[in-house]
Amino acid sequence: MNKVALVMGSASDLPRVQPAADKLDELNIPYEMRVISAHRTPIQALEFAQTAQERGFGVIIAAAGKAAHLAGIIASSTLLPVIGIPIKASALEGIDALLSTVQMPAGIPVATVAIDGAVNAAILAAQMLALSDEGLKERLVKMRKVQTEKVIESDRNLRSDYGQQK
Amino acid sequence: MNKVALVMGSASDLPRVQPAADKLDELNIPYEMRVISAHRTPIQALEFAQTAQERGFGVIIAAAGKAAHLAGIIASSTLLPVIGIPIKASALEGIDALLSTVQMPAGIPVATVAIDGAVNAAILAAQMLALSDEGLKERLVKMRKVQTEKVIESDRNLRSDYGQQK
Amino acid sequence: MNKVALVMGSASDLPRVQPAADKLDELNIPYEMRVISAHRTPIQALEFAQTAQERGFGVIIAAAGKAAHLAGIIASSTLLPVIGIPIKASALEGIDALLSTVQMPAGIPVATVAIDGAVNAAILAAQMLALSDEGLKERLVKMRKVQTEKVIESDRNLRSDYGQQK
Amino acid sequence: MNKVALVMGSASDLPRVQPAADKLDELNIPYEMRVISAHRTPIQALEFAQTAQERGFGVIIAAAGKAAHLAGIIASSTLLPVIGIPIKASALEGIDALLSTVQMPAGIPVATVAIDGAVNAAILAAQMLALSDEGLKERLVKMRKVQTEKVIESDRNLRSDYGQQK
Amino acid sequence: MNKVALVMGSASDLPRVQPAADKLDELNIPYEMRVISAHRTPIQALEFAQTAQERGFGVIIAAAGKAAHLAGIIASSTLLPVIGIPIKASALEGIDALLSTVQMPAGIPVATVAIDGAVNAAILAAQMLALSDEGLKERLVKMRKVQTEKVIESDRNLRSDYGQQK
Amino acid sequence: MNKVALVMGSASDLPRVQPAADKLDELNIPYEMRVISAHRTPIQALEFAQTAQERGFGVIIAAAGKAAHLAGIIASSTLLPVIGIPIKASALEGIDALLSTVQMPAGIPVATVAIDGAVNAAILAAQMLALSDEGLKERLVKMRKVQTEKVIESDRNLRSDYGQQK
Amino acid sequence: MNKVALVMGSASDLPRVQPAADKLDELNIPYEMRVISAHRTPIQALEFAQTAQERGFGVIIAAAGKAAHLAGIIASSTLLPVIGIPIKASALEGIDALLSTVQMPAGIPVATVAIDGAVNAAILAAQMLALSDEGLKERLVKMRKVQTEKVIESDRNLRSDYGQQK
Amino acid sequence: MNKVALVMGSASDLPRVQPAADKLDELNIPYEMRVISAHRTPIQALEFAQTAQERGFGVIIAAAGKAAHLAGIIASSTLLPVIGIPIKASALEGIDALLSTVQMPAGIPVATVAIDGAVNAAILAAQMLALSDEGLKERLVKMRKVQTEKVIESDRNLRSDYGQQK
Repeated sequence: MNKVALVMGSASDLPRVQPAADKLDELNIPYEMRVISAHRTPIQALEFAQTAQERGFGVIIAAAGKAAHLAGIIASSTLLPVIGIPIKASALEGIDALLSTVQMPAGIPVATVAIDGAVNAAILAAQMLALSDEGLKERLVKMRKVQTEKVIESDRNLRSDYGQQK
Repeated sequence: MNKVALVMGSASDLPRVQPAADKLDELNIPYEMRVISAHRTPIQALEFAQTAQERGFGVIIAAAGKAAHLAGIIASSTLLPVIGIPIKASALEGIDALLSTVQMPAGIPVATVAIDGAVNAAILAAQMLALSDEGLKERLVKMRKVQTEKVIESDRNLRSDYGQQK
Repeated sequence: MNKVALVMGSASDLPRVQPAADKLDELNIPYEMRVISAHRTPIQALEFAQTAQERGFGVIIAAAGKAAHLAGIIASSTLLPVIGIPIKASALEGIDALLSTVQMPAGIPVATVAIDGAVNAAILAAQMLALSDEGLKERLVKMRKVQTEKVIESDRNLRSDYGQQK
Repeated sequence: MNKVALVMGSASDLPRVQPAADKLDELNIPYEMRVISAHRTPIQALEFAQTAQERGFGVIIAAAGKAAHLAGIIASSTLLPVIGIPIKASALEGIDALLSTVQMPAGIPVATVAIDGAVNAAILAAQMLALSDEGLKERLVKMRKVQTEKVIESDRNLRSDYGQQK
Repeated sequence: MNKVALVMGSASDLPRVQPAADKLDELNIPYEMRVISAHRTPIQALEFAQTAQERGFGVIIAAAGKAAHLAGIIASSTLLPVIGIPIKASALEGIDALLSTVQMPAGIPVATVAIDGAVNAAILAAQMLALSDEGLKERLVKMRKVQTEKVIESDRNLRSDYGQQK
Repeated sequence: MNKVALVMGSASDLPRVQPAADKLDELNIPYEMRVISAHRTPIQALEFAQTAQERGFGVIIAAAGKAAHLAGIIASSTLLPVIGIPIKASALEGIDALLSTVQMPAGIPVATVAIDGAVNAAILAAQMLALSDEGLKERLVKMRKVQTEKVIESDRNLRSDYGQQK
Repeated sequence: MNKVALVMGSASDLPRVQPAADKLDELNIPYEMRVISAHRTPIQALEFAQTAQERGFGVIIAAAGKAAHLAGIIASSTLLPVIGIPIKASALEGIDALLSTVQMPAGIPVATVAIDGAVNAAILAAQMLALSDEGLKERLVKMRKVQTEKVIESDRNLRSDYGQQK
Repeated sequence: MNKVALVMGSASDLPRVQPAADKLDELNIPYEMRVISAHRTPIQALEFAQTAQERGFGVIIAAAGKAAHLAGIIASSTLLPVIGIPIKASALEGIDALLSTVQMPAGIPVATVAIDGAVNAAILAAQMLALSDEGLKERLVKMRKVQTEKVIESDRNLRSDYGQQK
């Protein structure tokens, strides 16, 4: 199975990226975590992107804050799908990272998720890989079922709590 | 090969969605275009999403403006990857559609592209499908090579234009 | 008397929704609280909306954060008035939820109140129900009178505090 | 049947308010149109609000641009539900009017619709009045059915257009 | 000498308005503080504005948060200059109050200062009153001189601190 | 009577400043128009501000776009009240000029009006001067009465237009 | 003398970049114009940046719109000062390009000018080169003197126009 | 070697400006720190700018918050390059300071860095001075090499941490 690359612009982003790793673990998807900076290690960024496919990656998740160029630069040098996580890391609450990630010019897409949306980045990667992986598809179905049940149970609990006090 | 679904919230969005269709044609990817509204035809939206996979779709692209719920609602009812195109269709220049599309809660991702980013939505869909389609991968490689050449030629032209006048 | 439905997208929204419940209690309006997610339980959301009227609801209040689709999705499947409370639940301070709730396309309105405006959602629901309920109208008149008195008393206190020190 | 009041801050707002009047006509709801300015005719605004109920109004729709205080001021002086339409009338594309209308303090709600959302204001008013008017409820059901059909027909047309060319 | 009115929409705004009172005290300008709400006590707001001049006020300062209508409503009913202080009192960090205060329609100005700019509101009121009060003008000159000296002294201190360590 | 200074950052701002001159003419207030740039003629700007009072000015209106520093710089060098008009003159629709004008630090206020709010700047200046000019006060009362009448007449016209067609 | 590089992301940006070239011509500064895209020709972008100094460039100006990564990517691979011009090229009026250009992480600065601020980019480059070029310094002094004169003449013209009509 | 001036609008900005001083120390660049306010000490601001070059400064860094006019005013009165640091010092999270600093009119550029981007301001100043200082250029090369190494080491650490646990 193709691996997922989980790249962040700085080691300080790890706490906000970790939920993606956890979700990939939960879905039993192999991944590698990397610290690569579009600005401080641009050569490494390009090299990583250019060789990602041959090294067995299927999807790349890139997380960065402020003028978040990481996802875009990686996307410029690979044809693998690239998912961008805008990180809230500045005075501007992440809106700078969101616009820097999502407003890509025609030709080089970045699949952008919500600000600090690490969990969804992992699920999105899984959905892409599941296009050709029946086992993963089933794990996704199961995960979603659990998720739905949880909301239904929340609803049941709330209703019984409030039902009693009325 | 899996088809792409190209869904828009209103027939009036067609001019802004058409570039996605053109790009899919160029990449020789089969697709179907639909008008489905999250708000005016919610039952159709859910039904479409629930049955998309079995009807041969591999990726769903959903385009909507204003309080753009279409991509999110479809994503709620399928495990196929869903790509959202925020359409500029209100006084607010598309920022409402962008936030309504990208700020999805954990559990239900939407792969969001730029405001009116139809071309990139198509390429992103192609990149996902190319994960298990070598022919498509090659067409993507070729498309990108052409794209790169064009910039290099623009550069050459500009330099010769300016070189002469100096 | 028709009941009010107080629906939230996640049990974690309860603290921000509770003031609506308290205000409904104060106005002696029957209500039911629910956890229903537009994205995690879309079928339940539609089913709830489709059957709300026949189950005795007169007004539906829906609270959600981020890409807040809940009010819009419910509004798509009922003709009861739907009041939306945008919840501040992301890096973006609730502006995402506000735009996702208020910028509805023509045909499907959501009566939107302020970010975290649970109290006003309850009062607005009461005003709607009071159109055909004289008793409730009187309770609203009384509530507002008390509210006015409080400001007048604040004013009196401030003036006497400052009057003395001058 | 209770009438709807359709109040605008300036006669120049008429083109953006007219769609509300047209929709009320379509739904056969009686209404009166007024020009009342929160800032230029504040006494008239308060007087209008204070006497609206006794003069047979059931719902008030107020449209204003820029620092849009009209809906809020009217809401301060009546217990009828007040619907606010933020009008795009300044350099800021209506975001000023939206925030001035929706961010009401606790105690005095304004049911806010989208920027220039006149049609939805009318439908929302109709939904409120329909709580105690079976005939109107039926007209709303019919209107929505027509609206749904239109989308379905758009969809059918698009599919046949594209089906043929493929 | 004409008094200044220092009006706030809610007693909870007092901590943010107090610096204006302190500055007026420092400049020896008589003032009265009031709690008057545009929305909860609209009649009092209009009455206050209509009678302010005859009761000896020369300038009115009005502070309010969220959909801050207070300054605008007072300005609608007096010809005294009205200064608006937008209060940061919501999820939106005061931008809602700023736009609601400053974006007044032609005909009814509000002299708006910065978000939470109570000190400047007081100084601006003093500048207006000083147009016909030589003594106050002198106190303003002195106050500004002190202010300038303070910056010059800060500069001197910083330079000597850093001069030594170099 | 004290004159009003009407200063703009560039001759190209004249069309947006002219309405202030017209309103001052209407109110019979003497004024002088100037082109002074905070950035291109900073010495002139300071000199103008420093000598404005002795040359008979009572109020200064300053209009500028983009990083609008003009009003702030003038305010730094005079104790006359300074009114700032943020001009819409950039891609950002005037929000840059608004924030640059209104967000002044404590100590140096600028009385800010709406984006392109030239008319209100003139009226605000008139209100300040009227504090010690009974004749001007009367002209303001009259001007406002006419303004109120106009809205009332708009209202009357609208009602009779619509009254007939119903 | 060191040359200036004037790089744009797309040939379509030429009209907005041309004023920089004109200003460099006016100041008699040698320059080369290039089309290089951070996303479509990333290898060329890095190579250009890595070799810019040895090829005789002293300052690099980079202009790009939307998720404007060009200036940042070039800055990552050279120690020459890089000036970024955010281009207004999307629904978002250039705010996306501004934030993508200016919000650079610590370590890799981009000297950002206003949205579409090509003229200022050229002047800023000239100011940098003038640090070690007395002749250029003199040309800058002269250019600024002319600029100041122009404003003074505008002022004189306006005053005489208005002086006569009064 | 030319000195760098490090000017801040208020002594309270020191903690946010200090990182620039530290970086200049690290690069062995002489500098002077000053507190000068565009609004409270405008004469000093102009005088400082007018004499900066003759007193041996090569680059000026100016840091200010809110309606941040300091960099612009200094830039108006010198031809040295001026770098602006927008300081986050208000309810608006620094967006006011950013726009007030970057949106300069044609003719007077300010090289703007990120909100609170003091480190980058220092590096940018160093890059400008290095244009004619080989020693400094080498120190910059070394500094960047260290910076790159750090990211590579972060990457190595992360990989080995995660490699083991897998």
